[in-house]
Amino acid sequence: MQDFRALSCSLGSGILSATCMEDRIATLIAESRPGWTLARPFFSDEAIYARDLDRVWRTGWLFAGHSCEIPKTGDYFSVGVDTDSILVVRGEGGALHAFHNVCRHRGSLICEAPAGHVTRLVCPYHQWTYGLSGDLISCRGMPDSLDKSQFGLQPVALEEVEGLIFISLAAIPPPFQPAREALSPLLQPQGLRRARVAKAVDYVVKANWKLVWENNRECYHCNVNHPQYIKANFDHYNVDDTSPAIRERMELAAAQVEAKWSQRGSGAAQAGAPTTHKLTGMTSFPDAARNIWFSANRTPLVEGYVSESMDGQQVAPLMGDYDDASVGTLRMRALPNCWNHASCDHAVSTRLLPLGPQLTGIRVWWLVDEAAVEGRDYELAKLMPFWQLTSEQDWEICERQQRGVNSTAYRPGPYSTDKEYNVESFVRWYLQVIQKPHALER
Amino acid sequence: MQDFRALSCSLGSGILSATCMEDRIATLIAESRPGWTLARPFFSDEAIYARDLDRVWRTGWLFAGHSCEIPKTGDYFSVGVDTDSILVVRGEGGALHAFHNVCRHRGSLICEAPAGHVTRLVCPYHQWTYGLSGDLISCRGMPDSLDKSQFGLQPVALEEVEGLIFISLAAIPPPFQPAREALSPLLQPQGLRRARVAKAVDYVVKANWKLVWENNRECYHCNVNHPQYIKANFDHYNVDDTSPAIRERMELAAAQVEAKWSQRGSGAAQAGAPTTHKLTGMTSFPDAARNIWFSANRTPLVEGYVSESMDGQQVAPLMGDYDDASVGTLRMRALPNCWNHASCDHAVSTRLLPLGPQLTGIRVWWLVDEAAVEGRDYELAKLMPFWQLTSEQDWEICERQQRGVNSTAYRPGPYSTDKEYNVESFVRWYLQVIQKPHALER
Amino acid sequence: MQDFRALSCSLGSGILSATCMEDRIATLIAESRPGWTLARPFFSDEAIYARDLDRVWRTGWLFAGHSCEIPKTGDYFSVGVDTDSILVVRGEGGALHAFHNVCRHRGSLICEAPAGHVTRLVCPYHQWTYGLSGDLISCRGMPDSLDKSQFGLQPVALEEVEGLIFISLAAIPPPFQPAREALSPLLQPQGLRRARVAKAVDYVVKANWKLVWENNRECYHCNVNHPQYIKANFDHYNVDDTSPAIRERMELAAAQVEAKWSQRGSGAAQAGAPTTHKLTGMTSFPDAARNIWFSANRTPLVEGYVSESMDGQQVAPLMGDYDDASVGTLRMRALPNCWNHASCDHAVSTRLLPLGPQLTGIRVWWLVDEAAVEGRDYELAKLMPFWQLTSEQDWEICERQQRGVNSTAYRPGPYSTDKEYNVESFVRWYLQVIQKPHALER
Repeated sequence: MQDFRALSCSLGSGILSATCMEDRIATLIAESRPGWTLARPFFSDEAIYARDLDRVWRTGWLFAGHSCEIPKTGDYFSVGVDTDSILVVRGEGGALHAFHNVCRHRGSLICEAPAGHVTRLVCPYHQWTYGLSGDLISCRGMPDSLDKSQFGLQPVALEEVEGLIFISLAAIPPPFQPAREALSPLLQPQGLRRARVAKAVDYVVKANWKLVWENNRECYHCNVNHPQYIKANFDHYNVDDTSPAIRERMELAAAQVEAKWSQRGSGAAQAGAPTTHKLTGMTSFPDAARNIWFSANRTPLVEGYVSESMDGQQVAPLMGDYDDASVGTLRMRALPNCWNHASCDHAVSTRLLPLGPQLTGIRVWWLVDEAAVEGRDYELAKLMPFWQLTSEQDWEICERQQRGVNSTAYRPGPYSTDKEYNVESFVRWYLQVIQKPHALER
Repeated sequence: MQDFRALSCSLGSGILSATCMEDRIATLIAESRPGWTLARPFFSDEAIYARDLDRVWRTGWLFAGHSCEIPKTGDYFSVGVDTDSILVVRGEGGALHAFHNVCRHRGSLICEAPAGHVTRLVCPYHQWTYGLSGDLISCRGMPDSLDKSQFGLQPVALEEVEGLIFISLAAIPPPFQPAREALSPLLQPQGLRRARVAKAVDYVVKANWKLVWENNRECYHCNVNHPQYIKANFDHYNVDDTSPAIRERMELAAAQVEAKWSQRGSGAAQAGAPTTHKLTGMTSFPDAARNIWFSANRTPLVEGYVSESMDGQQVAPLMGDYDDASVGTLRMRALPNCWNHASCDHAVSTRLLPLGPQLTGIRVWWLVDEAAVEGRDYELAKLMPFWQLTSEQDWEICERQQRGVNSTAYRPGPYSTDKEYNVESFVRWYLQVIQKPHALER
Repeated sequence: MQDFRALSCSLGSGILSATCMEDRIATLIAESRPGWTLARPFFSDEAIYARDLDRVWRTGWLFAGHSCEIPKTGDYFSVGVDTDSILVVRGEGGALHAFHNVCRHRGSLICEAPAGHVTRLVCPYHQWTYGLSGDLISCRGMPDSLDKSQFGLQPVALEEVEGLIFISLAAIPPPFQPAREALSPLLQPQGLRRARVAKAVDYVVKANWKLVWENNRECYHCNVNHPQYIKANFDHYNVDDTSPAIRERMELAAAQVEAKWSQRGSGAAQAGAPTTHKLTGMTSFPDAARNIWFSANRTPLVEGYVSESMDGQQVAPLMGDYDDASVGTLRMRALPNCWNHASCDHAVSTRLLPLGPQLTGIRVWWLVDEAAVEGRDYELAKLMPFWQLTSEQDWEICERQQRGVNSTAYRPGPYSTDKEYNVESFVRWYLQVIQKPHALER
């Protein structure tokens, strides 16, 4: 314990040589006790944060935003990953492109607004002009000998699946195909490509991004902290506290939804999609052993609820392929930075971005069908509270945990095997990822 | 001088290896010139601040607060020492306990409010529940095999002397008994256990904690900076500027108080307690050679003053065992973080807590007799100004000194032997303490 | 490229040993590609910033302010260079003095106000009292044996040229005489010594000081970013885009001004001084090879403009020795921290001061003739907009560039040889200066 303390202190004061630092991080990883929480430096230390940026945030696939946010050629939005700024642009012919928002001349940011519409990307400093796919078109004032083909905006890998846009800052990103195959069939009926953003709210949460994920990966905290959420969902019940009566309710809820679909033929059934998670507790995710960083599943809501809203009633017109409200809830999550909760009538996306060792930028979007009109078809006052309250309850929890974890007296504690199995999986996934050599070095 | 500058710069930029850093701190200590102010890094450097935390703040005894603030079982307040949060709780049977405010499960802060009342300490995250003495009582959702006795809140050493609560974060704290023996007889008649907090004010002062102490350890600055304070007190006079006329006034003031007590028999005399400091200047403190980090003494106020108030008149009912207002002023101080000035009718406590190399959190409390009622027995407008003005004058001085000391042109200067003897003692005490191996390593 | 990235990261996280850091800076310098922008760490890294402070800011000559700001004995202003505070004082007999604003006793700042008037410099802490030339006059409370001559305020080198005050923090400053010889004849007719400050505005710009200079050293960005500036000036035209028609306009403008002077005899001609820059583009500056860090030149304004004002008309009475408005524009600049644009009727000075790796304090002064009276002779609403708009346009550019340069995707880009020759010279000058051993070590 004393040894650990010294280690933690040294990391905290940031006065070690680079080699020494690598050794210490390796020691910290090696000393992590399976089934227990991570040590203090993982949540507060600059060097660990730098490692997280390298191995997690600048290697993996990051959820950037929704394709429906940039429907027209020339529409763009920007995404910030620590000090990096990335542009996601709708190009000619509707193709999506991503590149670094950094002029190849003097390095100025090109687009300052977080979103907008352009015909060309013109650097405001000296008007170097790039096409919508990032190629340098003109650079008045430079010698004719300059080979423009060498000065396009630096490309960023981009993939889109059913309206969700993912980017990777890695030179050689991990394969995206497994994620597409797993997510596409489940996401498809929700129709996120044909959605519109009803509202987005930005938060700056004073907690390390991993604390936010650990909070997301268990519902052990739900009973007391999420009075709204637990009224609509079953997943706060786990193997140790699911009574036969509750088990019966869950089976009934699942059966009712399925029965409805089968009555209405295969088209509707496909739109509803099967209820893939019928067990107590949260669906297992992630899977460190198989490096599964993405997943989606459908699960029933409680009796009488057709939407994750305050009273369980529909708060917007049906979305996507749905022709009946009884579709339960569709969930999707992808490490390291997003999750999505969708009902028959709306979807809520959450995106994390790293701002510092103890600071995470979080955006929450509420999406409805593209044809829905505010005031006529939905009201924000009914659409938003369920997930706004639940989200803000979680951010408060995370900030309080960060403050406790910052104490020199904090020591790793044990996870509940019944209730925190997914947190333990997350930690294992994380430790595995930060030990892998950087994508650039492969 | 050039060598020193280089040293200072290197410390400032925080780019040295851990071993190298230890060597540099050792060099800085070795180069400290007796009787002169400390070098710049002692007031601004992160590495020195980390050393101060280790050897001073997480080793010695810290004033936490008053026992009268938590009179009932279940009352608590929290204290922050840099990133640590400590709970001080009134337990069953009236015993006081202190422990780290950090859940043993996932490390969340348990009590977020700075003070309150609880029947159990329940972590807001997953409701792990601890008793008032810190033992883990329940942890719903964890396996039955979990040995609760291993997961109590981490204890913090606590001592109480005449209503003042001290804590130590050290695994093996220094002995408290010498402090108790020295302080108890002098503090006892003031009755701080039977007091109530009339008001507490929190300050965040942009100065290293040692500058605040150095300011406290001399009255060389009083004449110009403290017009209120010098009207009530004699201790801004030193051997070099105490005229025979002033000497005569001092002796008279002391004699009058003592005469009064002797008239009224031993009980009152004991309540008043002897005037232990009759010399010019401030009482000598600390004593580095004998490691005396605590002291108390009584000294006369000027003629016509019975209280440290703006006009010298009583501003609240008599406190403690006093049955006469002529008790002069009782002073107590303990390194590294408190001092107390008490009159017959009220007491003012000051507590320092480290927030950063150039940031100190300071709380000032005004205490009156527990039976006193605001509006009827005292008014804040009369109770507070004397020490509020004097304190805020000092914080302004300290912040201005910090800004000067931050200059690369700052060089240690000489202390006045007549007027800054206690500052010099403080510096010697400090240098001695930070050279001692950490308590945990003993 | 990979190697560079690793280097940049390591510098960024500040965890290298001092020796290692020196090596890395040397490597960064060695790898700088002539004619291309500097690498990312030069604009964001703490270690580079520390190097800049040492070799540039605490070695060279810094513009401090105007002699007309402190006309009377006892007038002073202070200047902050990172954490240093320097006082510039008008002493007895009108002489100017500069010293560190740090008491030799306990290091307190002496003058807290940014400017004022004093008869003596009295430290507010213990009233150590210094004369206007920095000598310690009294220190009540210190032993008589204290040798006051050893405790004067630490002097700072000061030079004044035609009303512009320069200071150097170096123990042995570089020679100032070459600057005086070059600047004095050109500045003299402007009469800055007989001016008054009509207004000064302070900015805190979130950009490294070098980005601000690079912006200043080219007019490639002017066409789009400075609609006001380009209406008055020719220097946004360069060899690659100056048409014969424009060339003709320039020659005509210069000829007209000169013709006017010659008609009115040598006095007026001298007042107007020769038009030293008649070429397209900006005058060449700095000259790294010959270490020329200062320069001044006169250049014509466009037809119909006699002042850098919104409509080109005079906005204040003629200044200095001018008896005719047709004097074009007088420009002066000195590395690392000032430039000056003067018309016949007013002058605008800009001063940079380093506040951090990505933070620069900038003050812009508007000066008019000392006899001019606001409301009667000039209005701020007409005097200020031209340079206020142009300046603020530039600060916005610099902040946007800083944000782009902070991206890990930023890579050095090529300068335009036609339009950014002075930026390239600035970079060469800078790299040369930071490689020179520190002045103190010479």
